[in-house]
Amino acid sequence: MSATRPVFFVSDHTGITAEVVGKSLLSRFSAHAFTVTSLPFIDDMAKAERAAQAIDTATRKNGVRALVISTLTDGHLRQRLAQADCLLLDVFSLFLAQLENELGESATPALGQAHGLRDNGLYRARIEAVNYALAADDGLAVERYDQADLILVGVSRCGKTPTSLYMAMQYGLKVANDPLTPEDLERNELPRRFDHHLAKLRGLTLLPERLAQIREERRPGSGYASLANCRQELHTAERLMRARAIPLVDSTQRSVEEIAALLKQSLDSAA
Amino acid sequence: MSATRPVFFVSDHTGITAEVVGKSLLSRFSAHAFTVTSLPFIDDMAKAERAAQAIDTATRKNGVRALVISTLTDGHLRQRLAQADCLLLDVFSLFLAQLENELGESATPALGQAHGLRDNGLYRARIEAVNYALAADDGLAVERYDQADLILVGVSRCGKTPTSLYMAMQYGLKVANDPLTPEDLERNELPRRFDHHLAKLRGLTLLPERLAQIREERRPGSGYASLANCRQELHTAERLMRARAIPLVDSTQRSVEEIAALLKQSLDSAA
Repeated sequence: MSATRPVFFVSDHTGITAEVVGKSLLSRFSAHAFTVTSLPFIDDMAKAERAAQAIDTATRKNGVRALVISTLTDGHLRQRLAQADCLLLDVFSLFLAQLENELGESATPALGQAHGLRDNGLYRARIEAVNYALAADDGLAVERYDQADLILVGVSRCGKTPTSLYMAMQYGLKVANDPLTPEDLERNELPRRFDHHLAKLRGLTLLPERLAQIREERRPGSGYASLANCRQELHTAERLMRARAIPLVDSTQRSVEEIAALLKQSLDSAA
Repeated sequence: MSATRPVFFVSDHTGITAEVVGKSLLSRFSAHAFTVTSLPFIDDMAKAERAAQAIDTATRKNGVRALVISTLTDGHLRQRLAQADCLLLDVFSLFLAQLENELGESATPALGQAHGLRDNGLYRARIEAVNYALAADDGLAVERYDQADLILVGVSRCGKTPTSLYMAMQYGLKVANDPLTPEDLERNELPRRFDHHLAKLRGLTLLPERLAQIREERRPGSGYASLANCRQELHTAERLMRARAIPLVDSTQRSVEEIAALLKQSLDSAA
């Protein structure tokens, strides 16, 4: 293992783009250890100066060149950063120039309030979708399923709630979630509350071993968490969902982002 | 206004990186209309072939070259895409080569399960943080404030819940939120439940006009939503928070991402 490599995400705004790109890039290099620092809201020369100094200090202390992933719009600020002792990967410099050329329009800087104002429609849709996901969590709003884009079903602790919230935040989709309870499973049929919404249903499932592990953290030593019970619940739930041709996503090895992207894709292709 | 420009976000994985970069780039060009299509999970040549054909079709139909923002790791798939009739902006091709050179290590492709497995620590932290935000929403878990990274306070509908959830998802931070109720405000002092957690408190506020508008959607014509009441509540809440030197963020013109980034910064600089 070589020395820990300092990494900076530098942005004139929230830094989320730099962070997403940076983390995605770094995840491809497993032989190195990285120490990550976020420097958002670097929007004047004094701040760029301080950022450059922090980068120089990190390079000196660690004995290896810092990696800087930046999304600065202003060329002067970017130039100051480029003078720091680092490998500078600037996401916008190259692409903005290519787009300006292609579109025949000069790029405008990201204003502090640009997101809130210009994307207002999408932005409000996302907040509404978050409120919807909270209201329609865990089967709490069956009467509002007409408004849902998707309804996630599955046994307790299979990942429905984080997925619903993530899809609301990322895509502005209204995603309800509704558990298949032990009572539902005993009745050996999909609950009648889903009858009018079958096309919106998506099932989440996972390996019994993983479910038992998750439930064990919540209720140690319980029958609820036992492997035998998890196996039985999942077996019945999967059978009932398959009988109605509900598309299933296995969450065992997938992150919430991956599950959300798969579900969104199933919605786009159904449309 | 020129013709609508077709835009494609192409990825061999969830497509979130391509989407974040693409939307950030496009937001700088306000004179154009864009029609956006996401093509995630393009991970073999047959899918790359279909993606390239979809791009060609869009270019032909719209009469202007499609813009393609891609994050493909595999050079062969990227080459196929590059043959399509489009402006191809590939986020990884340039940067991965520079990083390979700098780190002396070959980049590995993003595996389907890479995120879940390699980032397991951070990933679990994020899910735990989401569960914490849900449990500690709206003052529901005062007894767990010891575990909080931050506690958001403010009047009803000032944006606490979406901000808490976003900070959990994006940063893995445990963020509780707790309303300043009309009863709290009448007592004319900050509730005693915050006494042991003052350093963790952050206030959210906004313009009375905006708050009245938000509340009006929820309870039309109510005293709760009236401008006079909103003005009074905000005035008292801000005074009480300022008296304890609680940092305030104004959410009126800011997106959840912006508020979250500001709050995270205030946490980093306090550490």
